Amino acid sequence: MKRIPLLVFAVATAASVTLSTPFAAGGADDEGSPIYGVKIPAGYRDWPLVNVGHEAANLNDFRVVLGNAVAIKAFRDGTLPFPDGAILARLAWKYVPSAENNAVFGREQSFGTGAPTNLEFMVKDSKKYAATGGWGFGQFTDGKPDSEALHKTCFSCHGPAKSRDFVFAHYAP
Amino acid sequence: MKRIPLLVFAVATAASVTLSTPFAAGGADDEGSPIYGVKIPAGYRDWPLVNVGHEAANLNDFRVVLGNAVAIKAFRDGTLPFPDGAILARLAWKYVPSAENNAVFGREQSFGTGAPTNLEFMVKDSKKYAATGGWGFGQFTDGKPDSEALHKTCFSCHGPAKSRDFVFAHYAP
Repeated sequence: MKRIPLLVFAVATAASVTLSTPFAAGGADDEGSPIYGVKIPAGYRDWPLVNVGHEAANLNDFRVVLGNAVAIKAFRDGTLPFPDGAILARLAWKYVPSAENNAVFGREQSFGTGAPTNLEFMVKDSKKYAATGGWGFGQFTDGKPDSEALHKTCFSCHGPAKSRDFVFAHYAP
Repeated sequence: MKRIPLLVFAVATAASVTLSTPFAAGGADDEGSPIYGVKIPAGYRDWPLVNVGHEAANLNDFRVVLGNAVAIKAFRDGTLPFPDGAILARLAWKYVPSAENNAVFGREQSFGTGAPTNLEFMVKDSKKYAATGGWGFGQFTDGKPDSEALHKTCFSCHGPAKSRDFVFAHYAP
């Protein structure tokens, strides 16, 4: 049961070789998500990009998926299911017009990121989370985990991606 | 004049501690950009995210800016001008509807990345590139540098961002 925290620590240590001051980093004392006990992993903001997307309508956001080293390697190698220790981070910001960039392009065509909305993480531990496809889930708003009711919906919502180990994101080449 | 290549190598080495197989990496023998001689930096695909945007109209793309360790630290510390050794990478992909995600959300609201379009880099060397604000520019399509005519437009196009050291991208928290 201690394997995931140790892996997270190893990744955070490796990242700190490159970047000595992680900007957004969780701490060991932070509160875990309901049901799963997933915490915000230290150094996640420095992880490589998996892909980016836009949800319109009421979400109206830009969303980006980052992956730790285990996850990125699995994407690049096409490894399914993802190995234990893989962690995915989903960041999101409001989708807003960019007046500054419109001025450069000379037309109304530019959209950028506004305020951050929430953070989501998927942590692979095939034993600990055997009942939910091997994944533990966590969603955080302003650094605090969201409700248990919300976390009850994570795994079923990811059901349509079962053939890709419940991961919606594709790796963008 | 050898400082930039050494810094690039140092960053690539640090990244390889975490990721042993960089997916998209330039090599020392690759062709440099016209005017500036900027090459695709090894390991750039593993660099942390600066920000993401969408250009509609004829560009119709998702674009992401990544930064090497020097650049990311400067963004987080608010350092202007960017120090020598800072490198920014701009990746882009076509902006396409995601039928898969629309099915999950139950409505037509999802957009994701299609084929990659081109790659751009800005390399800070205040002496080598003194005539262009200290920045060298490179745009690559299918791994090959684009035309000299195109590269003549880089610096003037970045003029509106002069107060931010000619960098359009803001750091997304």
